[in-house]
Amino acid sequence: MRPTTPRRSVGLKAPNALETDFPLQNLPLSVFRTEANLMPRIGVRIGDAVLDVHRLLEADAIDLHSPEDDALRQNTLNAWMALGRASSSALRRKLFALLHSCTEGAVRETVSNCLVPASTCTMMLPSQIGDFTDFYTSIHHARRAGELVRPNAPVHPNFRSMPIAYHGRASSVMVSGEPCRRPLGQTSATSGYRPTTKLDFELELGFYVGENTHAMKRLSVDSAEDHLFGLCLVNDWSARDIQRWESAPLGPFLAKSFMTSASPWVVTAEAIAPFRVAAPIRGDDAPPLAAQLTSASHTASAAIDISLRATLQSRGMRQAGIAGVDMANPNFKDQYWSVSQMLTHHASNGCPLRSGDLISSGTVSGPERADSGCLLERTRDGREPITLPTGEVRTYLEDGDTVSFSGRCRRAGFRTIGFGECVAEVTGDL
Amino acid sequence: MRPTTPRRSVGLKAPNALETDFPLQNLPLSVFRTEANLMPRIGVRIGDAVLDVHRLLEADAIDLHSPEDDALRQNTLNAWMALGRASSSALRRKLFALLHSCTEGAVRETVSNCLVPASTCTMMLPSQIGDFTDFYTSIHHARRAGELVRPNAPVHPNFRSMPIAYHGRASSVMVSGEPCRRPLGQTSATSGYRPTTKLDFELELGFYVGENTHAMKRLSVDSAEDHLFGLCLVNDWSARDIQRWESAPLGPFLAKSFMTSASPWVVTAEAIAPFRVAAPIRGDDAPPLAAQLTSASHTASAAIDISLRATLQSRGMRQAGIAGVDMANPNFKDQYWSVSQMLTHHASNGCPLRSGDLISSGTVSGPERADSGCLLERTRDGREPITLPTGEVRTYLEDGDTVSFSGRCRRAGFRTIGFGECVAEVTGDL
Repeated sequence: MRPTTPRRSVGLKAPNALETDFPLQNLPLSVFRTEANLMPRIGVRIGDAVLDVHRLLEADAIDLHSPEDDALRQNTLNAWMALGRASSSALRRKLFALLHSCTEGAVRETVSNCLVPASTCTMMLPSQIGDFTDFYTSIHHARRAGELVRPNAPVHPNFRSMPIAYHGRASSVMVSGEPCRRPLGQTSATSGYRPTTKLDFELELGFYVGENTHAMKRLSVDSAEDHLFGLCLVNDWSARDIQRWESAPLGPFLAKSFMTSASPWVVTAEAIAPFRVAAPIRGDDAPPLAAQLTSASHTASAAIDISLRATLQSRGMRQAGIAGVDMANPNFKDQYWSVSQMLTHHASNGCPLRSGDLISSGTVSGPERADSGCLLERTRDGREPITLPTGEVRTYLEDGDTVSFSGRCRRAGFRTIGFGECVAEVTGDL
Repeated sequence: MRPTTPRRSVGLKAPNALETDFPLQNLPLSVFRTEANLMPRIGVRIGDAVLDVHRLLEADAIDLHSPEDDALRQNTLNAWMALGRASSSALRRKLFALLHSCTEGAVRETVSNCLVPASTCTMMLPSQIGDFTDFYTSIHHARRAGELVRPNAPVHPNFRSMPIAYHGRASSVMVSGEPCRRPLGQTSATSGYRPTTKLDFELELGFYVGENTHAMKRLSVDSAEDHLFGLCLVNDWSARDIQRWESAPLGPFLAKSFMTSASPWVVTAEAIAPFRVAAPIRGDDAPPLAAQLTSASHTASAAIDISLRATLQSRGMRQAGIAGVDMANPNFKDQYWSVSQMLTHHASNGCPLRSGDLISSGTVSGPERADSGCLLERTRDGREPITLPTGEVRTYLEDGDTVSFSGRCRRAGFRTIGFGECVAEVTGDL
């Protein structure tokens, strides 16, 4: 894939254009509404503003025809995602050209009329998620989580042969900002249903399916990303005590399905193109890969350099005016399996992937324990608590804690782009 | 719950009214289309005919107002399911009265104009399934499947404390009749992706969520069935070799998501009311139940007496004109956990259940191995093959095999009702 992002920056109205996650080189899409117009509609984020795509089409400010025009007037991105990469690239070029010419009077006024301050927008999930799949693709996470229960063989034999995953729950995927209510659940034969005492976050990178795969269509790693629309941040909230008790023999169920948070802005496959890097080295002791999961061109640019960050701010810190402290700074490029490999494996049995489906990477953890993407790893299931700047101690999350994720792509000669925020405060149970 | 089914039978046009799964006491709903009218629309099955509800409303033959009228004109049952039990009961009474008066000239002609021969209908899935959940609620299945891998402790300790489940895949739920293509998958570190050699069926009872549960709404076993719309048959096709290799540590994924078959007709909660029976005896050694999962009134009528049947017909049998042979005749009343308990547990963590969601029981197996709801149990993972009337031998399913499920509710003094068929032929991989 060749980078399609122009290197030159264009001055737009964004006040902090140099530091923003959303320069013109990003142009992520989502769905929003405002108090003045409650209709959910598609927007493109630019700096501190949201470009109202519906209004832009109404104003005839951009040259699009059916089916693109119809798809962009919907109140979810599903139909737009279904049109695939060619449409996505074309829109990107047209928006770039339009915003580039923004200095001219008439265009400037038209575009200006379609910009809404981001602070006045209520963000929504970008798509109606048909299915949510959660992978398990960080070997550092698998090793550190596995060491807690299987110290002699922490990583299962299948981990290095294929990307492991489980089906998640679509109905409880919520947009960033929604509070995370502490779930009740059984944690032993005698516990009854009580609030979890091991509430955890999981720092993940999600991605949306673009063009559908037809039933029984199998993919290859070289073309799988034809079905990738774009990426977001995901917090796969987990209740470790519920998970431990319920998981035999069918895996996690209620330990996950109370809530999953997703950042609203979808950074397109086109926008992240300049940040592709080589797949991580598998090591001499790794089992040979199935032919479907590897190719030379895939290995050369399989990974994506996204520096992720998780912060935690307790209620006490908030009251004392102390900013969230870093919990982890892993990089998505260290995941053992790539987006292409996840898509290819997922479709290998004929399972249809539908436009707007959300797929997530599983916890992104770095090689060092300080970059663990969840508290299970970081505190060794509570055995090694961490101390916050207020002196408060954490094994797992407490009510009032706010967990926030961010992500940035950086490369010399390119404008930095980011993902915005995936944030939620933990609140007490009902 | 009091039975709402009238005991008297009404003579309608159905040629085999006495033997049909679909007497007037059943009135199951689904979605269908015909060659003459490709628009998907809601139908009610009566004998060998389908009552076209859209046409009935157009003809003003039934007295319904918004929101019921609007919901019944949709091309899925989701909106209708969302209206809940009161609407479902009211429609049942009105249809019964209408069809009861069918002997009169004008009404007879109107109704007759709305009846479509079932043989001309292409059935569709009744709802757009937001999420598909698969439980694991037969202790006989858990014991016999568990014995194959854990002979000393076949049933996990959590099994008798709560109904275990995993999230399934909604995109691959198909209506009865669609062929089951043999999936490819990894079965070991060196297998690559190859066709499964352990393709199995799972005889299950599914149910659809009626009225939504709001996020964080918790249920009790006494009111959980307020959210039950109705029941169907489910075949949760499984690839045992793929499942064995992929399931650690997160449970089944691609071993299930290639396809799940569902029978089209949804037998409503009202129709099965006369067939409620007491919950099975838990035994003195069972752990005490959490308060949320039990009550005296629940125990008195928790179970449903549904006699299930699975048959297998090989291509050779078909060519020789030999009917399918019985593989199992279990009864749904023997499941360890009830529909109410499944719903209550599912919503206990705040997980939203949405109208049209499909939830399934997991394999329904009887106390005897001859009534095993899957081949894994029946052939002990292939160690004890079965012989078909043609002399063919089966450990797992072969291409050309047709698996068919049926189900009947019988009680003295009541008309027998049934579920129709859930059938599919196994075809080769692509």
